[in-house]
Amino acid sequence: MWLGINFFSMEKQQRTEISSLGEFGLIKHLTEHFELKNPSSIKGVGDDAAILDYKDKQTLVTTDLLLEGIHFDLTYVPLMHLGYKSAIVNFSDIYAMNGMPKQITVSLGVSKRFSVEDIETLYAGIKLACDRYGVDLVGGDTSASMTGLTISITCLGEGEKGKIVCRDGAKNTDLICVSGDLGAAYMGLLLLEREKKVFASDNAIQPDFAGKEYIIERQLKPESRKEIIESLERIKVVPTSMMDISDGLSSELLHICKQSKLGCRVYEDRIPIDYQTALMAEEFNMNLTTVALNGGEDYELLFTVPLEMNDVFQNLPGIKVIGHTTDESLGCCLITRDGQEISLKAQGWNSLEK
Amino acid sequence: MWLGINFFSMEKQQRTEISSLGEFGLIKHLTEHFELKNPSSIKGVGDDAAILDYKDKQTLVTTDLLLEGIHFDLTYVPLMHLGYKSAIVNFSDIYAMNGMPKQITVSLGVSKRFSVEDIETLYAGIKLACDRYGVDLVGGDTSASMTGLTISITCLGEGEKGKIVCRDGAKNTDLICVSGDLGAAYMGLLLLEREKKVFASDNAIQPDFAGKEYIIERQLKPESRKEIIESLERIKVVPTSMMDISDGLSSELLHICKQSKLGCRVYEDRIPIDYQTALMAEEFNMNLTTVALNGGEDYELLFTVPLEMNDVFQNLPGIKVIGHTTDESLGCCLITRDGQEISLKAQGWNSLEK
Repeated sequence: MWLGINFFSMEKQQRTEISSLGEFGLIKHLTEHFELKNPSSIKGVGDDAAILDYKDKQTLVTTDLLLEGIHFDLTYVPLMHLGYKSAIVNFSDIYAMNGMPKQITVSLGVSKRFSVEDIETLYAGIKLACDRYGVDLVGGDTSASMTGLTISITCLGEGEKGKIVCRDGAKNTDLICVSGDLGAAYMGLLLLEREKKVFASDNAIQPDFAGKEYIIERQLKPESRKEIIESLERIKVVPTSMMDISDGLSSELLHICKQSKLGCRVYEDRIPIDYQTALMAEEFNMNLTTVALNGGEDYELLFTVPLEMNDVFQNLPGIKVIGHTTDESLGCCLITRDGQEISLKAQGWNSLEK
Repeated sequence: MWLGINFFSMEKQQRTEISSLGEFGLIKHLTEHFELKNPSSIKGVGDDAAILDYKDKQTLVTTDLLLEGIHFDLTYVPLMHLGYKSAIVNFSDIYAMNGMPKQITVSLGVSKRFSVEDIETLYAGIKLACDRYGVDLVGGDTSASMTGLTISITCLGEGEKGKIVCRDGAKNTDLICVSGDLGAAYMGLLLLEREKKVFASDNAIQPDFAGKEYIIERQLKPESRKEIIESLERIKVVPTSMMDISDGLSSELLHICKQSKLGCRVYEDRIPIDYQTALMAEEFNMNLTTVALNGGEDYELLFTVPLEMNDVFQNLPGIKVIGHTTDESLGCCLITRDGQEISLKAQGWNSLEK
């Protein structure tokens, strides 16, 4: 269903002007199908503030701002996918603390270009993500905007005291692990950007994504790694440090090392990469390792565990040990297939440089 | 100090391009002077999520999105005031639940028009508000924007179980109370808009706000009513319902009545209005009651208490009893000075209709 969408064409459908509902009408209309699922959600949308209740748990809070033209391009991002992804990127930050996302607030700035149906579609994606990950929508704000679409989501989560994992807890000689595979979302982005240009020159050409579904899906409908947090819980391991990979492996590794005052060695041949990512990098004539190190938006988990756990983590499904931490003085390096040491740099995803 | 600013002119000062710091550099730079003040703030900016800890209290969460051109006009809103006000409007929502604001996250979308110094000034205003109200900055997101400035703030607060006040708890025959006075912020806005036009036609004319300081300050540097929440606590009164007045008294009263399934009678001669508001309304040839009923952004508290408390509330400093609730079938009306009943309407502040 997700990939069956006809990209590059907004299907003509009913159009209701947002002003016909008014701000309060719109919020009510959009949120009435979200039911509260979590015991900690006492009261949701409809008052000055939502009410949450945490007893022995600690509360986690994270927030993300997504702006049209900077973070997404509606030429090839369907609104439902955008809603889904906007929620997922926030959940991912809570999982990255070894917590469970429980509530979100969603604020939208909407220009006149968008109809009620458009915003409903965006919310349908948010609802799908909330349902799949067991998260409650508890509030938000909706406003007119002069230009384009602005999405601001704040996510609250719960973590057990003593089991919340920060970026600064890695120890020397820890194993460095990542979930899933890297670089796919970036390759998906480049592919969509290329097809957008093709489409701009000839509107009759619809792109053919056969054999490239995985990288497209990683870009347009990413998931966050709840199941990794659940398997760590099952084997009773609390990582020493953890982050989600949103800006690229290289950038995130440097964060963990800087905050934990360590260096690291990561092995090129151990970085997990999907076949479709590799094919696409070849087609674009790009260095595959660069793609995997610096491509962002994978929302995989990067974490460290003590060296003694090597046997466990070498065999854990969905997780790959890619290197280890070192003393700070040794710096942060990639060990290439032919044994060279190359300094890691945060080329990544700095949206302020765009 | 606040009103000594030379409006309508951006003073020339050092200009550092935001791209020179990068996203992480900018966040660090802006947030390093915010120290954590609340025991519930375990960890602030610098990880995937902030960590909060609430034990027996309930958590309140509210969020507001402010967009340039819709919610503020930088021609006459100094950035420091904008930062201050952006924080205040969120605190106000937490007080309106009978809670205490404790943490905020701040997300900014910033176009190239703004320098690091501009954003520092905005943050200085946020810091001033946080310091004055005892609130911690615990996270946020900073991003480039195609056009203008976007500010999204989420505020978390604490409320005591059983003492949190919602909009739906008013009972028939309750007294309706408001804090402070109404309509001033709206008159301040109209005055600033008028002076902006004067300035546009002749740049040599600097506005003279003598005798109008109060309404200007209510618009540019509003406060939220912490002291009212504290006095209610002191006299051990928990209102049956409460809201802050951001969209106008009329609109908020209708919210409380609708959600509590009641009607109301509000007396024109009891609505508190400042002398400067009255003078300005006269200058603009506007009906003063309309201004007080529909002017927004006052951030005063509107609440209901049982009729038995009449003696207490008739004499409480800073609070005025303006009417009472009725059976739902009687509707929501204003009783004019000459005894006429006029239906209340939510003309207010619907930014989606702009």
